[in-house]
Amino acid sequence: MSNPRSDETFRTIWLSPDNPAVVQIIDQRRLPHEYRVHDLHRWEDGLAAIDEMYVRGAPLIGATAAWSLYLAASAGGRAEFAKAAAALSASRPTAVNLRWAIDRVQARLAALAADGNIVAATRDEAEAICDEDVEISLGIGRHGLDLIREIAQRKDGPVNILTHCNAGALATINWGTATAPVYLAQREGIDVHVWVDETRPRNQGSQLTAWELGQRGVAHTLIVDNAGGHLMQHGKVDLVITGTDRTTRSGDVANKIGTYLKALAAHDNGVPFYVALPSTTIDWNIRDGVREIPIEQRDPREVSHVQGELNGTTVSVNTTANNTPVSNYAFDVTPARLVTGLITERGVCAASEQGLLALFPEHAEQA
Amino acid sequence: MSNPRSDETFRTIWLSPDNPAVVQIIDQRRLPHEYRVHDLHRWEDGLAAIDEMYVRGAPLIGATAAWSLYLAASAGGRAEFAKAAAALSASRPTAVNLRWAIDRVQARLAALAADGNIVAATRDEAEAICDEDVEISLGIGRHGLDLIREIAQRKDGPVNILTHCNAGALATINWGTATAPVYLAQREGIDVHVWVDETRPRNQGSQLTAWELGQRGVAHTLIVDNAGGHLMQHGKVDLVITGTDRTTRSGDVANKIGTYLKALAAHDNGVPFYVALPSTTIDWNIRDGVREIPIEQRDPREVSHVQGELNGTTVSVNTTANNTPVSNYAFDVTPARLVTGLITERGVCAASEQGLLALFPEHAEQA
Repeated sequence: MSNPRSDETFRTIWLSPDNPAVVQIIDQRRLPHEYRVHDLHRWEDGLAAIDEMYVRGAPLIGATAAWSLYLAASAGGRAEFAKAAAALSASRPTAVNLRWAIDRVQARLAALAADGNIVAATRDEAEAICDEDVEISLGIGRHGLDLIREIAQRKDGPVNILTHCNAGALATINWGTATAPVYLAQREGIDVHVWVDETRPRNQGSQLTAWELGQRGVAHTLIVDNAGGHLMQHGKVDLVITGTDRTTRSGDVANKIGTYLKALAAHDNGVPFYVALPSTTIDWNIRDGVREIPIEQRDPREVSHVQGELNGTTVSVNTTANNTPVSNYAFDVTPARLVTGLITERGVCAASEQGLLALFPEHAEQA
Repeated sequence: MSNPRSDETFRTIWLSPDNPAVVQIIDQRRLPHEYRVHDLHRWEDGLAAIDEMYVRGAPLIGATAAWSLYLAASAGGRAEFAKAAAALSASRPTAVNLRWAIDRVQARLAALAADGNIVAATRDEAEAICDEDVEISLGIGRHGLDLIREIAQRKDGPVNILTHCNAGALATINWGTATAPVYLAQREGIDVHVWVDETRPRNQGSQLTAWELGQRGVAHTLIVDNAGGHLMQHGKVDLVITGTDRTTRSGDVANKIGTYLKALAAHDNGVPFYVALPSTTIDWNIRDGVREIPIEQRDPREVSHVQGELNGTTVSVNTTANNTPVSNYAFDVTPARLVTGLITERGVCAASEQGLLALFPEHAEQA
């Protein structure tokens, strides 16, 4: 794998070691069938990578925008930078991290003297955004590792962890959120095995999570989304860890559709259910996740059509009759009462306002 | 649709109206992309149809065996019949209905005088097996209809019913088990709408249930298996009806993998969860379904590969990296405590030993 951070297996975005005018990413659209590094030469390449989902996952989208601004500054100074910032901001309207990253690089530039080195400044800021994201993942990883270690100490055989969707390295800069504790457990020599939910409709489990666990040599088994309850009934799951797109002040968790069903099964079988999250995804203004978080409906083709490999080519096949009506809800909300705990970069807490405020007291006044 | 029972939309197996030496079935392997009637000329064609899954579903497999014995008797008398019975018995070892149907036609033949008309006798018995199965489906349908009618009377808009897998007409001779109440509600003019779970890994929902509901003009929407919990949280499901492969004396229900997760969501949201079953699928010798029912693991390719249509051809694509380990548990067990009631041909009862014995007192002595 032509990737500069082989000690960490991979990063998802990096400055080319051979050419500082080129930013490199993994073309995630082709995974798991093909690992291809894609070069970003111009900021427009970064925009296209975001638009066409070469990259996905909030932290990685933000980082790609930041690096695109570096490319813009390198190519055409402040004028080109402004043009790029406007275009990037408009690309994925719901991606909070995207605008946050753009604002941050803009602020850095605004603080720079008129004759300052804007190329160096934007590069530094993009690097800082990535490095901080890695630190957040590692913080989540260390706190989650404590949970895994505790289970490993009281049982024989592997610690079996179930995860849903991809809250993995591929969604962040490295390590991931839900996967960070797993990778750190592996590094510590703990015997871990991951049940990977396929995660219909977009198959992030089979196409991304299984792939990245395989790349890092973590034992794993792919299952259909329907199977987790049966596994828990039979003692085959020690711990569930998922990611989240948005967590309310009271600890309700919006995540990929189907997460709620796994939380119900975990609760019914006494299996601990944890959610890993960077604190930036906490929405301090919302309490009731089920009532207040709007759930996006996406393209029905994501349900009717499935991407796979046929004779060496990636194709998309229609699994339905052409006139079949389809609904495609992208997320669901898991009520806090089903969540054993939240794993944040500052520590593990109860999924409750009290639990969250104990770790993040600066938000006590809000809401 | 070239099918003799257009008043009932279709049967799944019938004697050709043009040629009494030909039995006709639907080649279900090609659904939903292609509706093709397949002719069985010889008993070996029936055996191949069972082996290669042109037909599936316990009642339909049994009926196909019975009609194959009619073809054998027509072609070569008692000698050919014996040969066919032996070969058919060995074809699907776990299919209880298969051997039950063969035993029944054999018994009819054994009771026939040496100079009796064996062609007429086997035809009558095959017809009787099919007619009785239709009566069982209609019985389930009438009792389930009462539940739907009751909901329709107290709400505006359609009665929204969620189902998992295919316990439809295509699994039986006609009407189905879980779908029979829906079809009867439609016939009565009740506004019904069915949420169809895709049912990974084999996609019986998207490929069979959605297709047969569409053929009969029942409003329906295909969803991924992950979506049902979200729909129930938001009041979009009034009733769940699934089928079952095996029900214990105490009302535990073994059904397609993922049924348990839907039952948990129904329970958590106060949605009634019913299971439709012919009483022949009750195992009166078992009480604890989770502990006592062995769950078959099937070919990992069912998970890794997905069948769909590409440029007019049905193909199978690989959705995983080639080295991804896969588990494929086919069924799970829903504990009786999560089942609101069982819909049988004799009536609706609580999912409990007491409930079942009230309807089937002849089994009180057993176990």
